[in-house]
Amino acid sequence: MLKRTYDNQVCSIAGALELVGERWSLLILRDVFLGIHRFDDLQRGLGVARNILRDRLNLLVGAGVLERRAYQQRPERFEYVLTQKGRDLWPVLHSLMAWGDKHAQPPAGAPTLVEHRGCGGHVDGERRCEKCGAFVISVDEVTARPGPGAVPGHPLLRAAATR
Amino acid sequence: MLKRTYDNQVCSIAGALELVGERWSLLILRDVFLGIHRFDDLQRGLGVARNILRDRLNLLVGAGVLERRAYQQRPERFEYVLTQKGRDLWPVLHSLMAWGDKHAQPPAGAPTLVEHRGCGGHVDGERRCEKCGAFVISVDEVTARPGPGAVPGHPLLRAAATR
Repeated sequence: MLKRTYDNQVCSIAGALELVGERWSLLILRDVFLGIHRFDDLQRGLGVARNILRDRLNLLVGAGVLERRAYQQRPERFEYVLTQKGRDLWPVLHSLMAWGDKHAQPPAGAPTLVEHRGCGGHVDGERRCEKCGAFVISVDEVTARPGPGAVPGHPLLRAAATR
Repeated sequence: MLKRTYDNQVCSIAGALELVGERWSLLILRDVFLGIHRFDDLQRGLGVARNILRDRLNLLVGAGVLERRAYQQRPERFEYVLTQKGRDLWPVLHSLMAWGDKHAQPPAGAPTLVEHRGCGGHVDGERRCEKCGAFVISVDEVTARPGPGAVPGHPLLRAAATR
C-alpha cells in the first residue's frame, strides 16, 4: 500500500477543511452569519454539548475565522463575531445552502432567502440577483430573510428574539 | 436547557452537511471531480483506510451523489462517477478551494487552476472568468489544470497517470 501522496499541506480544499471541515463548525458559522453571537444562544439553538461548542469556538478563533469579544463583566461573557477571513466563507455556506435547497430541501420550501441589499431582488442559488442580474460576491451585499420553509427555531428568528 | 429547536429537517445547510459534511466525503468528491474514479486509485491517493473509503462511497452512492459502475468482471471492479446531483456540488468545492487558496494556501501557490473551457481564461475565486468576464455556473464550463503549487501527488497528475 502506498502512502498518501497528496496531503493537507498542498491542497487548498484540504487546507480549508482542516480549519472548517467539521459539521458543527459550519453549523456554528451558519448561526453566526445569521446573527447569533453569544455562547448560550448558540448552545441552545444548536443543541450541542457545551464542551464541544467551546472546543469548536476556540478552534475557529484560533484559526482567525471568529473573534471573541467580551460583552459583559462579572460574570465575564463573550460573543463571537466573524473576522474578514470568516466573512470570506460565505460563498461556501451559500453554495451548501443552494445545494441543500435543490437536493435536500424541506417540503415547505427554502428556510432562508437571500436578498440583494438595496436592490431587494432575490439572489438565486448561483448567487445571481434575479432582479438586477448582478452576481453577488460578498456577504456584505446581501441580507438573509426567513423563507417559506422557516420554522420557529430558525436562526434568523432566534437572532431577532435576542436583540 | 432547551432542546435543539432548529434541526436537520428544516435547514438546507444542515441537510447538505448530512449528506456530504464529512471531511473524507468532500476529499473523495474532490478526487472524483479531478478524474479519479476507481476504488484502488482513490484509496492510494487519499491514504484512507479501505473500510472507511468503502463506507463513504456507499454513503455517497446511497445519497445519489455518486453512481457505481462495473468496469471489470472476474474479479468485479467498480468505478464511481458523479451524478447530476453530485456535479451540482462543484460550487461548494470551488468555494472551499478559493477560500483555501486565499487563506490556507501552500507557499508555492495554488495547486489547482480553473480554466474557462473554450475561452481559456482563468476563473477566479468568485467564479468569474478573468478573460471574458463571464460568471461560471457549472462544472461543465471549466477544466482544472495543475497550478504552480501542484506537487507529484496532485489528483490531476494521478488521474493522468491512470489513463
